[in-house]
Amino acid sequence: MIIIGERINGMFRDIAKAIREENGAVIQDWARKQEERGARYLDINVGPGSTEPVRVMKWLVEETQKASDLPLCLDSTNYDAIEAGLKVCKQPAMINSVPAEAAKMERVFPMAAEYGAEVICLAMSEEGIPKDADSRVALAMELVATADAYNLSPDTLYIDPLVLPCNVAQDHGPEVMETLRQIKLISDPPPKTVVGLSNVSQGTKNRELINRVFAVMAMGNGLDAAIADACDEELMAAVATARILLNIDIYCDSYVDVFMKG
Amino acid sequence: MIIIGERINGMFRDIAKAIREENGAVIQDWARKQEERGARYLDINVGPGSTEPVRVMKWLVEETQKASDLPLCLDSTNYDAIEAGLKVCKQPAMINSVPAEAAKMERVFPMAAEYGAEVICLAMSEEGIPKDADSRVALAMELVATADAYNLSPDTLYIDPLVLPCNVAQDHGPEVMETLRQIKLISDPPPKTVVGLSNVSQGTKNRELINRVFAVMAMGNGLDAAIADACDEELMAAVATARILLNIDIYCDSYVDVFMKG
Repeated sequence: MIIIGERINGMFRDIAKAIREENGAVIQDWARKQEERGARYLDINVGPGSTEPVRVMKWLVEETQKASDLPLCLDSTNYDAIEAGLKVCKQPAMINSVPAEAAKMERVFPMAAEYGAEVICLAMSEEGIPKDADSRVALAMELVATADAYNLSPDTLYIDPLVLPCNVAQDHGPEVMETLRQIKLISDPPPKTVVGLSNVSQGTKNRELINRVFAVMAMGNGLDAAIADACDEELMAAVATARILLNIDIYCDSYVDVFMKG
Repeated sequence: MIIIGERINGMFRDIAKAIREENGAVIQDWARKQEERGARYLDINVGPGSTEPVRVMKWLVEETQKASDLPLCLDSTNYDAIEAGLKVCKQPAMINSVPAEAAKMERVFPMAAEYGAEVICLAMSEEGIPKDADSRVALAMELVATADAYNLSPDTLYIDPLVLPCNVAQDHGPEVMETLRQIKLISDPPPKTVVGLSNVSQGTKNRELINRVFAVMAMGNGLDAAIADACDEELMAAVATARILLNIDIYCDSYVDVFMKG
């Protein structure tokens, strides 16, 4: 599993302030810091309630790229903002995200094809997030089939089964694990999988503990990526260890450091 | 997953000393302590090279039962010692262990039937531990089928897929995970599963980290029990969290404490 660094997001106060003041140094610092801690992509989100998402997304992408060569994950429900970001990305990016809704898929998939972008696909529709694994997998299949019509290979898609907080939707947990397993059987090559990790612990005590236990368990069921806090050292150590136990990276005594240094 | 407390084992110096000096208080202290920390069974092992395994096993069982009502897991390659322990157990125990070898199964399974004991069954034969999951599962099937001939239901068996240290046999890791999944498909009801947790980290740095990451990942693949250190607080917190995420226990803010208090 790889980490998509979550920190350049206008929902964090320091980022919101940096956006208001057009202080690029703050963005660049977070870009560098997350890369140093082992992030492999950087999520870019203008934050909730932005009045100028198109302009801000473009600015965030440009500032981030001054400090890091990591690929970016453009995170917005405003697809014009995502397209503005794609235009200035120096290398292929990830679009975050599209649900299994016809109009949105018709907007996102051609854009992904045009810019050579990967796409995070949400296992939800106009009717919301289904509870059971079978319904989530059915939505994943719809997303994979629709993407195929735009010549997007399944392995350029990251299916997000959608994780809910364990204190309010505890019965979703095993369904998400089952969904992760089944998604790998949808196609050949299979789609990749991703989660927004911090959702699972929203509103709980022990947030970091819950995040890292969920991450490890999901990795054991095939999870490929997580949007998460690359600066959470215990999370990164747990992920590095899971990669050893899954025989992805070769063991050495300093494997945690090796993982974080890429 | 439940924890079988590993600590009453003559391989630990304080236990070996207590055995030599017939100091029952040390045994009773560990029995109490492990129960308080959340163990659900207590493993009892006379240790390597004991000259009187039969007498010592009986003594350890008696001392342990003075301090705890937990069921015991009698851990020896000497089946006369196990039988001596079974005779003085106040409640049904677990026999640890039998491999898929005809002579040993013929000794252990009738004894399990006679004393109403559960049995830890090792996925290995005279030829050793196979590498791939399919061969491990084949041995598990042989164990389940043989036990059935002695009227032992599969759900009284704990199959141990056998975990090797990740620094010397890293490619076994994914095979063990796959074995855990497949074992649940062998029979209805399925057998239970168990691992000797500390084996995975033998000879590594980061032993506790590796232990708890392996435990969580294995739980996500259906692991039912682990012989482990109930006094490792981070392990117990990780196990408690995995039980929440698998929807086994009901979430409350103090779920870690609740798990440890049983």
